[in-house]
Amino acid sequence: MADIEDLLGRMSLREKAGQLSLRLHGWTAVDRAGDDHVLTGAFHAEAERCAGLGGLYGVFRSDAWSGRGWHNGILPERRAEVAALVGEAGRRSSRHGIAPLLVEEAPHGHQSLGQTLFPVNLAAAAAWDPDLVEECAAAMGAELRAAGVHLALISGLDLLRDPRWGRSEECFGEDPRLAAELTAAQVRGLAAAGVGAVIKHFAAQGEGSGGRNGHSAVIGPHDLAELHLPAALAGIEAGAVGVMAAYNDIDGVPCCANPDLLTGLLRDRWGFDGVVVGDGLAIDRLAGQTGSLRAAARAALVAGVDVSLWDTAYTLLEDLVTDEPELVEAVDRSCRRVLRLKQRYGLLPGPADPRPEPIVVRDAASLSRALAARSLILLDDPAGVLPVRGRTRTEPVEVPDTTVPRPLRQAQDDASTSSGNVDGTFLVAVAGPNADSVTAMLGDYVPPLRPGDGQTVREALGAHWTVGDEDAVERADLVVCVLGGTSHRAYSEEFADNGAAGEATAANCGEGVDLSDLELPGDQVDWLRGIRARARGPVISVVITGRPHVLTEVIKLSDATVLAFYPGPYGAGAIADLLTGAAEPTGRLPVTLPSATGVVPVRYNDRLDSTRSYVDRPDPVLRPFGSGLGLRTVGVSRLAAARIADGIEVEVGLHHDHETAVPEVLQVYGKRLGGPFWPRQRELLAFRRVEVPPGGQTYRFVIMESDAFAGPDSTTVIMVGDRTVEISATSSCPAPR
Amino acid sequence: MADIEDLLGRMSLREKAGQLSLRLHGWTAVDRAGDDHVLTGAFHAEAERCAGLGGLYGVFRSDAWSGRGWHNGILPERRAEVAALVGEAGRRSSRHGIAPLLVEEAPHGHQSLGQTLFPVNLAAAAAWDPDLVEECAAAMGAELRAAGVHLALISGLDLLRDPRWGRSEECFGEDPRLAAELTAAQVRGLAAAGVGAVIKHFAAQGEGSGGRNGHSAVIGPHDLAELHLPAALAGIEAGAVGVMAAYNDIDGVPCCANPDLLTGLLRDRWGFDGVVVGDGLAIDRLAGQTGSLRAAARAALVAGVDVSLWDTAYTLLEDLVTDEPELVEAVDRSCRRVLRLKQRYGLLPGPADPRPEPIVVRDAASLSRALAARSLILLDDPAGVLPVRGRTRTEPVEVPDTTVPRPLRQAQDDASTSSGNVDGTFLVAVAGPNADSVTAMLGDYVPPLRPGDGQTVREALGAHWTVGDEDAVERADLVVCVLGGTSHRAYSEEFADNGAAGEATAANCGEGVDLSDLELPGDQVDWLRGIRARARGPVISVVITGRPHVLTEVIKLSDATVLAFYPGPYGAGAIADLLTGAAEPTGRLPVTLPSATGVVPVRYNDRLDSTRSYVDRPDPVLRPFGSGLGLRTVGVSRLAAARIADGIEVEVGLHHDHETAVPEVLQVYGKRLGGPFWPRQRELLAFRRVEVPPGGQTYRFVIMESDAFAGPDSTTVIMVGDRTVEISATSSCPAPR
Repeated sequence: MADIEDLLGRMSLREKAGQLSLRLHGWTAVDRAGDDHVLTGAFHAEAERCAGLGGLYGVFRSDAWSGRGWHNGILPERRAEVAALVGEAGRRSSRHGIAPLLVEEAPHGHQSLGQTLFPVNLAAAAAWDPDLVEECAAAMGAELRAAGVHLALISGLDLLRDPRWGRSEECFGEDPRLAAELTAAQVRGLAAAGVGAVIKHFAAQGEGSGGRNGHSAVIGPHDLAELHLPAALAGIEAGAVGVMAAYNDIDGVPCCANPDLLTGLLRDRWGFDGVVVGDGLAIDRLAGQTGSLRAAARAALVAGVDVSLWDTAYTLLEDLVTDEPELVEAVDRSCRRVLRLKQRYGLLPGPADPRPEPIVVRDAASLSRALAARSLILLDDPAGVLPVRGRTRTEPVEVPDTTVPRPLRQAQDDASTSSGNVDGTFLVAVAGPNADSVTAMLGDYVPPLRPGDGQTVREALGAHWTVGDEDAVERADLVVCVLGGTSHRAYSEEFADNGAAGEATAANCGEGVDLSDLELPGDQVDWLRGIRARARGPVISVVITGRPHVLTEVIKLSDATVLAFYPGPYGAGAIADLLTGAAEPTGRLPVTLPSATGVVPVRYNDRLDSTRSYVDRPDPVLRPFGSGLGLRTVGVSRLAAARIADGIEVEVGLHHDHETAVPEVLQVYGKRLGGPFWPRQRELLAFRRVEVPPGGQTYRFVIMESDAFAGPDSTTVIMVGDRTVEISATSSCPAPR
Repeated sequence: MADIEDLLGRMSLREKAGQLSLRLHGWTAVDRAGDDHVLTGAFHAEAERCAGLGGLYGVFRSDAWSGRGWHNGILPERRAEVAALVGEAGRRSSRHGIAPLLVEEAPHGHQSLGQTLFPVNLAAAAAWDPDLVEECAAAMGAELRAAGVHLALISGLDLLRDPRWGRSEECFGEDPRLAAELTAAQVRGLAAAGVGAVIKHFAAQGEGSGGRNGHSAVIGPHDLAELHLPAALAGIEAGAVGVMAAYNDIDGVPCCANPDLLTGLLRDRWGFDGVVVGDGLAIDRLAGQTGSLRAAARAALVAGVDVSLWDTAYTLLEDLVTDEPELVEAVDRSCRRVLRLKQRYGLLPGPADPRPEPIVVRDAASLSRALAARSLILLDDPAGVLPVRGRTRTEPVEVPDTTVPRPLRQAQDDASTSSGNVDGTFLVAVAGPNADSVTAMLGDYVPPLRPGDGQTVREALGAHWTVGDEDAVERADLVVCVLGGTSHRAYSEEFADNGAAGEATAANCGEGVDLSDLELPGDQVDWLRGIRARARGPVISVVITGRPHVLTEVIKLSDATVLAFYPGPYGAGAIADLLTGAAEPTGRLPVTLPSATGVVPVRYNDRLDSTRSYVDRPDPVLRPFGSGLGLRTVGVSRLAAARIADGIEVEVGLHHDHETAVPEVLQVYGKRLGGPFWPRQRELLAFRRVEVPPGGQTYRFVIMESDAFAGPDSTTVIMVGDRTVEISATSSCPAPR
């Protein structure tokens, strides 16, 4: 093991400052030359500048911004070799033999050619399944590990507090507990594969005023602590090795220049000993406040940003710190943190800790599809058209069941009497802007697919039914409208300096793509109205999107509405399974659906209304957080709460009358009364994805003291479904068991 | 002078608690019986309960909620007599001879029959004229004083941070400095008349999440201090005797139960020695947090609420405090404050301080009209149709000037060739929802008018021109569309328990009337589109409203657009003066006009954007704060800034080429760089309403150190019009003069 203090003592200021920089766009470090990969002049210049590279961000990044694709990017089978090439050259550029960290974007799959893509975080949150998310992260981690990557940047800390924000898709919804459990699951999954998680963004980026990207988080310390810090703390406790400081300010103080946040809280209170990375160019942007890049670098360093991404400002550190002992110390402190991390990954000279081999996991694609399946949310199906079991003349025609609702029964009747299609086939018209797009299912921060990768909804439904296009609407027995948005970026687009979408993007979601109007983009509602008027059979809308759009009209115009937050390349198959009845819908909303644009923000855990809502919109909520329909109903047969030494024990009995187990997402909420704060309407205290066996089952939860009560004399109303039970912090408490 | 400590020592707990209550709806204290006024059973019961009344709220209040009008309310000529009746009976009910305080609503005129109504605060702010506002307040104070009123409740502390909020009309706009100067002006004006101002609401009520009334102010301490506290501090420094604690919480802590706000800041830091009044039923509402009314009373009392309005909770004080010395002390402290205030108004036994006689002021109605005139904002007039000097056949027909824009010239041509109206009269069609309404010009918190009081826009224009109605649009030489909203409450409506509008209100603005959609109510834009299509002459839109609506389409559809925040009963005359050229438009926006509903919030002093705005709405601002057109242009000929000992001295030269003085609202902004906070886009540092003489003039402003710079090493960019000058806090500073 290298002696880090000894190493530090031998390093020059320039070498130390070099360790704090991820300035280079990593994809410019290596060129493909025929069958070979060669290090570029940019790589050598950067290694020279740093006198040994701190790390490289995005060597394998492939997307429209980087301009790397299948024609010029690093091919999957060559990644390990390139990682070794870069690592070895980096090590040689340091007179101390310090190799660079390889850092990659992996918000829902490694953003590199051919790696497995998973549903975006918002979809993962809709599955309410930390175990499966952890398994997906482990699979992702195994791919990253095999590519020679040390650190993965993952989203998860941002809460979806305003759906106008284009980065909504990267959030685990609006709830701190859901985000905390899923962040921890991702961190653990990566760690199981030996990959370190850098969790982003710290903090409160989801509160950007007006849903505008990177704007001021107008929020106070209590809301910050209750809403935005739990996911970060959970990620750190789960083993995150890095934290990315966010672009935004909180109550005026930019996160990257906030010593209370990055040092007082993160280091002193939480004891975090990993690295703090500034978001891309965030330190340079501080010059808009400080007046110069040098002052910006100083502010970030003093506040506690260890590592800079892309900034020019940190290249000035060497000149800046020579005359200020405080800054010299700060550079040492940050460099020490980087070196400790490098030691863990074997990047310092001498023998390293053995890095655990990735745990064998299920096939990544199967995991991606499983998560997609669990993420699909049935918003509405008043007449029970789902599942649709389409039939052809060659299949036996069942006698219409009177329990089958009108639209479908009518369609089936029509099919059986051949009033619709000349050949009697059960015909499904598949139409809408996302019917034929794989890329619209992927979300932002993804590499290009190979032709033939992934599946469209039309293709997936075509495996079950005879499908037609929009022209077939009048003849079809069923119309499936595939609506929504897209975060797809074209290679021909211009980009912002940090890779966010440019002004002329064709995307309507993703980083830099904030919307003032939450109705579905384009004229989709009018288009759907036209389809509805033309359709003979039922109309099912499948909305594929990265943010909670206003779906008030879509639901009215459709016989059933399914919401799919970007489900990834295997999402279409999952959607087909749901529509055909091969799978039940089990997703639940991780966010409140607003009924109109003008009502935002509406969050289920906002503080209690003391008065009513808008006179022109008495109910601002279209669908509440946590809601989502199944095909079979589960009831709450029992709810009890008992005071225990360190909180509350809750027992929930669930029951149903079905013959097989029924999936459910069991959610325990509390309304905490009696503390110094005006109560929130509800707070998620615990949740579990369960399979309720025939005959029912009882589930137990322990709510920790700090989550359970607002204060020592307080009372909490526990809520599960429509049942409530009240429990006082002062109720008699059995002896600890 | 009564010895207050001696008095306190002789008072029972019940008597002391009684002094802290404004529980009774004052209008129920007195009944009209023929020509007499008699005290009601409710009055006597309350005096008995309190063993001497602390005060009475709203004895003279007349409006739809109180149900008091001209048929049953206290008539103007009997007010002084009734005040004496109530005061004397109240004094007799106290064994110590303590008389009650009479407290009345007067947000823009005393809410009592026949008193003079003024433009709402939002209109007053549009006039940018603290001197005139002070004069109006003095006139209002004289009326209150003559009615025997001691304390007037005035709005002003709330900033208009989200135009969805129905109480937008009560705000002095979105800027802290403008609100501070106008609040101070109102307080001084009232004080000059011997009336004490209770300023409301404390604090940050304008930040209610989503513009929803009384909802959580999601805001941190820096924004609170920079934006929401200056008006309160200015009001207190100007002599406010009371502060009303707001309904909302700030970052979770309800204002009425916030000791840091009501004691730490208000008493300990600011040294305020007047009374803190809780907003109506705000303490009872705390039970939603505390679990009981007793706990609510306790929380409010301990936090520093001296006087309760309407609550049941404070009637429980007597039982509550007996066993807790801390609460006994708190009651004493609050009672002492009330008694000190009563001493000032001669309500304690023994000789009193002489109360100054009201200063003789201009006729209140003239002042109201003058303020209305200065509040009118010309938003748009691209072709210069204003002023319209309508002519008839009996007037000489001028040769059309080629500088006169198309629509008007065409109208004049048409008039001169008699193609339009058979008799050759210059005909003006006046139409739209607010064309015939006086009440729509008044705002919320107003008494009913007598029939014939006030004037409609149609009536006012009829004094100048031949006016027709909507049927005349095709024939008319000019169409004036009077659009907007109304805060008018019908006597037949139901109300919330605190007098806010009920759910079924016909109003679309005012307390309790929050909107999710900022387009003009109803189908006004479609209606205007129809008028535009039918009109032969130019179309001028006059929007009379209490909030910044989205006027994007109105401006496009109109040849000229005038915005009139509720200008009061004399507003129509002011509007007619503007349209006919008898007066120039000089109002300036005290708030940012959003370009669409989905962009809110947009405030000119939000923190700098680090990225662009919405991809579907690149410019979220329709018209910026401070803007407004005149008929003549004033230029900035010089801008200089010099460091002085205690801040910055700014010199601004204004010039123009006109032959008479030109009115202008001179606004000095700063962008403060270099402190710990991400800068705001602009901040209003100083302003003055000026009349720029022919040949121009130089104006000097001194910006105080604390407003001028963000910190000791900082730089401030001073901005006036398009000119900027940068000044550093460290620039050499001449010796103090």
